[in-house]
Amino acid sequence: MAFKASIKTGKLKESLDAVGRLVDEIKLNITEEGLNTKAVDPANVAMALLTIPEDEFESYNYTEDMTIGIDLNRIDDILSLASNEDILKIETEEGSMMNIQVSGFEYNISLIDPSTIRKEPNIPDLELPAEIVLNGQRIQRAIKATEKISDYIVLSTEDNSLIITGEGDTDSVKIDLTEDDLIKIDSTENARSLFSLDYLSDMSKSIQKAPEVTMHLGTDYPIMFKFNIAGSNIEYLLAPRIESD
Amino acid sequence: MAFKASIKTGKLKESLDAVGRLVDEIKLNITEEGLNTKAVDPANVAMALLTIPEDEFESYNYTEDMTIGIDLNRIDDILSLASNEDILKIETEEGSMMNIQVSGFEYNISLIDPSTIRKEPNIPDLELPAEIVLNGQRIQRAIKATEKISDYIVLSTEDNSLIITGEGDTDSVKIDLTEDDLIKIDSTENARSLFSLDYLSDMSKSIQKAPEVTMHLGTDYPIMFKFNIAGSNIEYLLAPRIESD
Amino acid sequence: MAFKASIKTGKLKESLDAVGRLVDEIKLNITEEGLNTKAVDPANVAMALLTIPEDEFESYNYTEDMTIGIDLNRIDDILSLASNEDILKIETEEGSMMNIQVSGFEYNISLIDPSTIRKEPNIPDLELPAEIVLNGQRIQRAIKATEKISDYIVLSTEDNSLIITGEGDTDSVKIDLTEDDLIKIDSTENARSLFSLDYLSDMSKSIQKAPEVTMHLGTDYPIMFKFNIAGSNIEYLLAPRIESD
Repeated sequence: MAFKASIKTGKLKESLDAVGRLVDEIKLNITEEGLNTKAVDPANVAMALLTIPEDEFESYNYTEDMTIGIDLNRIDDILSLASNEDILKIETEEGSMMNIQVSGFEYNISLIDPSTIRKEPNIPDLELPAEIVLNGQRIQRAIKATEKISDYIVLSTEDNSLIITGEGDTDSVKIDLTEDDLIKIDSTENARSLFSLDYLSDMSKSIQKAPEVTMHLGTDYPIMFKFNIAGSNIEYLLAPRIESD
Repeated sequence: MAFKASIKTGKLKESLDAVGRLVDEIKLNITEEGLNTKAVDPANVAMALLTIPEDEFESYNYTEDMTIGIDLNRIDDILSLASNEDILKIETEEGSMMNIQVSGFEYNISLIDPSTIRKEPNIPDLELPAEIVLNGQRIQRAIKATEKISDYIVLSTEDNSLIITGEGDTDSVKIDLTEDDLIKIDSTENARSLFSLDYLSDMSKSIQKAPEVTMHLGTDYPIMFKFNIAGSNIEYLLAPRIESD
Repeated sequence: MAFKASIKTGKLKESLDAVGRLVDEIKLNITEEGLNTKAVDPANVAMALLTIPEDEFESYNYTEDMTIGIDLNRIDDILSLASNEDILKIETEEGSMMNIQVSGFEYNISLIDPSTIRKEPNIPDLELPAEIVLNGQRIQRAIKATEKISDYIVLSTEDNSLIITGEGDTDSVKIDLTEDDLIKIDSTENARSLFSLDYLSDMSKSIQKAPEVTMHLGTDYPIMFKFNIAGSNIEYLLAPRIESD
């Protein structure tokens, strides 16, 4: 039984790109509700969850649950040839080829055996005391500013502000986002965690596209970003680094 | 006796670029009807013919036939400084210097001894059963799409369609251009030849600029592209590769 | 006693860039009249003088003369994050840190000990017989055109024209700027000097931004360029090279 669907090229591209920032190969689950994937980076530090809901598709002919293995670079190469508004048709069977038709081109792409792809991670059950909602570009700009100074970033909450700091050997940067700069901040206790900028910098390329991003932050706990781009739900989870004195 | 002429910079640039995609040095023939050159690439696989008709020049003071040797990179370097609408004046004598005046600059460029440049090829007399006229951008897009999958491309005609396919180790692409997608197709018998994408990819940078390109195609025969850009007539000839099974 | 000032980011960036084309580190003098620096390149061939007058600042709280050492790459990195219209606040003390606040970011940047920076040059007292005023883009275009042919450029005056020439092994270029092309030319005697294009090419990136540039030229003497960009006064001085026959 084959799965058939059609979707705007740009929508599929932006959604897959969000995961592609962390991994090259994914196990894509085809369900009645839409497509979803969970991916963890090789170092086990960052995790991405993506759901493209069924109603974001132009057509969606689901027959049964299946899981296919995809090389994201290969797909991205092909999607980059079509324009974002072009409707792309997919047809695929479990463990087989994927047929992609777009803009008059018909591709037959071999899939990857899902059993060879890194196992889907367990999503940890986290209770994070601080929830901050803010514009994605603000996050990206703070990450860029901190990168000029350091390889690490400290995110903390204090008196209903989000404080972002970076310290290099001699130089430092501090960004103080108060309630006026944020869409919402709800912090039951002060939180403070330190993260590697390597991962955050990659993640911020997708984060910056979302007008509203929800951050969940704790003290020496993973950070979680939840947002929506191109109709898809994306979650990033990033483990903290230990602060050395 | 010197040859003197003036022409819009952009016109000369685009015309010479079409040949420059295959070779670095050309023998340029100055005749009563205009400038022309024939060039074959070092591997003898691809050939370019260019004619810039006399009436595409702003002024054209011809006195006698002559042949000069030109380093296209040198000329392109200079042309890139002027804007496309600027009128460029050339003055040259056989086997001597070329004087170029444009936008207030006066260059004296040494020519190459034409006898040191690769001999002009004989143009084979080909009878190719299929003639297809189509938009140059369509050709370029098909070449780009095939490059994602393979190093080779198969061009064939079938039932008044042009079929373009590429096969990689595991993946494939097929583009089916029917009469609706083509300006004209006239195929007395089905044709099918395989070509290296290396050359076609270079050629397509000029081909894509022409709204109408005439392709002549046979079975395991060279392909010929004829088109006009910036008022110049260009022909590309590309030898087929043998299909391995 | 700290120095505090605020200025448009773009104004500071463009002014410092003019010096940054020659050196990476500068001694910046803070005076009642504004900021100034003099820098000489490591080979002692080119010199840059910059003054940002006090009235180009939005606010300028001067208390005493001081000199600070700045790594221009570090500052440029930070300025590139803010938009040109953003107001940037500086606060600094001699031999200490610099605090920079812009667009909601607060940086603390360590300064360089001024005594470790290359000594400020003496500005030679030159009497140059030719003064030419012209558009900066014209200078840059002539430099670009000459670079295609040679590593050296000859600037000379003759009959109230500025003649720019370059000679390669086989090729040459000549640009003849007459009184019509110049804003002013005042040449008491013919001047002629040869310069390395390496330095002029770097300098021309700032020179091209000035609608009016004053050149002072002699025979086998340094050339001086004086111009104003973003409200700052800039002078470049470049030593001549010896013409080999």
